[in-house]
Amino acid sequence: MKPRILIIGGGYGGLRTAMTLQQHLHQQAEVTLISKHDYHYQTTLLHKVAIGTLSARKSRIYFRKILDLTKVQFIKDKIIEIKPDSKQVIGNGGVYEYDYLVIGLGFKPEGFGIKGVEEHAHKLSSLNAALKLDKAIEYKFKEYCHTKNQQDLSIIVCGTGFTGIEFAAELGSRLDELCLIGGIPRDIPKITCIGRSDRILPMFSKKSSAIAQKKLESFGVEVICGGDVQEVKTDGVVIRKDGELKEIKGNTILWSAGVRGSDIVEKSPLENTKGRVKVDAYLRSPQYENIYVVGDCALCTSRDAIHAPTAQLSAQMGDYVGKSLLKILDGKEQKEPFKFVHRGTVCSIGHTDGVGIIYKQSINGEFAAFLKNFIENKWLYGIGGAKLVFKNGQFRYRTSN
Amino acid sequence: MKPRILIIGGGYGGLRTAMTLQQHLHQQAEVTLISKHDYHYQTTLLHKVAIGTLSARKSRIYFRKILDLTKVQFIKDKIIEIKPDSKQVIGNGGVYEYDYLVIGLGFKPEGFGIKGVEEHAHKLSSLNAALKLDKAIEYKFKEYCHTKNQQDLSIIVCGTGFTGIEFAAELGSRLDELCLIGGIPRDIPKITCIGRSDRILPMFSKKSSAIAQKKLESFGVEVICGGDVQEVKTDGVVIRKDGELKEIKGNTILWSAGVRGSDIVEKSPLENTKGRVKVDAYLRSPQYENIYVVGDCALCTSRDAIHAPTAQLSAQMGDYVGKSLLKILDGKEQKEPFKFVHRGTVCSIGHTDGVGIIYKQSINGEFAAFLKNFIENKWLYGIGGAKLVFKNGQFRYRTSN
Repeated sequence: MKPRILIIGGGYGGLRTAMTLQQHLHQQAEVTLISKHDYHYQTTLLHKVAIGTLSARKSRIYFRKILDLTKVQFIKDKIIEIKPDSKQVIGNGGVYEYDYLVIGLGFKPEGFGIKGVEEHAHKLSSLNAALKLDKAIEYKFKEYCHTKNQQDLSIIVCGTGFTGIEFAAELGSRLDELCLIGGIPRDIPKITCIGRSDRILPMFSKKSSAIAQKKLESFGVEVICGGDVQEVKTDGVVIRKDGELKEIKGNTILWSAGVRGSDIVEKSPLENTKGRVKVDAYLRSPQYENIYVVGDCALCTSRDAIHAPTAQLSAQMGDYVGKSLLKILDGKEQKEPFKFVHRGTVCSIGHTDGVGIIYKQSINGEFAAFLKNFIENKWLYGIGGAKLVFKNGQFRYRTSN
Repeated sequence: MKPRILIIGGGYGGLRTAMTLQQHLHQQAEVTLISKHDYHYQTTLLHKVAIGTLSARKSRIYFRKILDLTKVQFIKDKIIEIKPDSKQVIGNGGVYEYDYLVIGLGFKPEGFGIKGVEEHAHKLSSLNAALKLDKAIEYKFKEYCHTKNQQDLSIIVCGTGFTGIEFAAELGSRLDELCLIGGIPRDIPKITCIGRSDRILPMFSKKSSAIAQKKLESFGVEVICGGDVQEVKTDGVVIRKDGELKEIKGNTILWSAGVRGSDIVEKSPLENTKGRVKVDAYLRSPQYENIYVVGDCALCTSRDAIHAPTAQLSAQMGDYVGKSLLKILDGKEQKEPFKFVHRGTVCSIGHTDGVGIIYKQSINGEFAAFLKNFIENKWLYGIGGAKLVFKNGQFRYRTSN
């Protein structure tokens, strides 16, 4: 009997594991990838889907089109339980047995128990969630001519990290067009971005934060730093800032203030913190040698610092786990611990601007935007070659007014 | 007081009227275009929207982006009544007065009173209807892995004219991909195309019909000619063929067997046949000299033959009415009657094939497909220049499997 490798989740980590395996496997193992969708999508582009600048069609990358199905079996199923002791995974559609398990079940939004987050806020947690937000915004701009309700065009973004800022900037840079299309005076729509930290994008240098904030404000986005969200309502957000309570009004609210791991991992016998498993140096569960965890549901440290969960980290984890499994199948041992190479991070600010760090060098402006696109297209190239870049890739163009 | 020109409807006819006016007007008149949507769309491409090969985003062409708003005022409103005697048009949002009225309210599907057409069949009557059909088909292909209901992947097209054939071919040419994506055996989905006439596309030569049918069948589309639909059910269609009743099974049904004019026109004091006004040689209502009718709600004849309602005809009508109005505003009289120049008609059969007539010459194959694209892009060029062709144009590519 061939060893069975089961990969659950088809995000950056799971998919890269499968791709690495299929590239080098010669029938030494049965590899199965299970995902609840037929398609992979780039989580890093969900803000574009939510604004309608990236179409649903372009954002779906179908597993059966990019996988070599003679080497990796694909099953569409939603995983509901992990049973490490019986080496089984339970899905809605059946029970799956494995010898090696790779968990890449991604993230969930973290509401920190704040009242109303669950019920009243949109989240950019999946492609479908992004499409729903797109519809909601489009509908409100479309109906404004009837409702004349300014609140309908007031959008509140909770969170001044990557997702929140990229979303606010993408929307900000589209406001001119949305107003033109809908015949709406430009001063009606309002975007407010609220964060707890004392500056936006705290992972970057102070200078980069300032540049990003200036650019955001040029789109008309109001930035509130040091604001602690107390409650999310249907028509606004209550914050505490400088010791005082204040209510920001707006009928569309995005919650992008935090993420946690997977709830399937959380309720599994695997030791975890909020759905994230603190993996060993080889990205394995410390309890089960045959279980690997990649992506956002892995807590991965180096020199005692926890790596921030990013697509870049997830993809490198997937590559590493794929290679580890290939070694094991060859009867060898993986002796090299996982080492994250932080090439850089870029936050796009609209289509033609951005800030970031590349190889420890701060960058901004058009070059940052170019790199951001380059990074996304490189991912597409890695999983589907030039054809996929051509079909699904993003190419920069200035939007016309 | 300047004369007020009111154009109701922003399809091919109404939009061309507005564009012709704005090109030559110098404040001699107040021109207003009213449409129930903020955007124009190409009715000739709705089959692509319904199959998901043309995105909603690309198919919307916003009026406020292509109109010169200093010359043409745009109002988004749904017209509900025409009152020619008081020179008024009533919309949901208000009452509009005019000196000259241009009616371009388009078509409605014609069900010929057949049972179930209204309730159980999709129609390609608007962009939203096409998007709804796209969702319905996508959902059924997506859920097939759970339902395993072959009927869900059986699609019935009623009508073997332009719309029906273009839709069936577009879907047929996508089946390989849809099956691959969903992991569905290729022999499960079925498309059946039913028409009353003895051959498909009866407006073309027998040879062209035969070529088109052969191509359709190569996509696995079953063609039934001489079939008279008796009833449309939720799960199939009852037809009479060769004197016998027969039931064709399928859970997705498109009705594209006929069109009629606008219901607003139908219930107006204007003499009309099924919502279409038999216009005079100058495209005016014979009852009201100041009312022009363009597009599908005009019945326009030459040498006693009625012109088939096409985008080409509508656009030429719009150009003509725009020019007529310019003459009148200059104090002149339009002496030239409207003359339709039938340049040609092309029916696409998937992305890379088609049949048609260009300047009385039958054509088919890739050249026809190329011309079809050329015609669509020429329309975009006409209303929005090269920029619009670049942003919203369709460029041929072979879909990869």
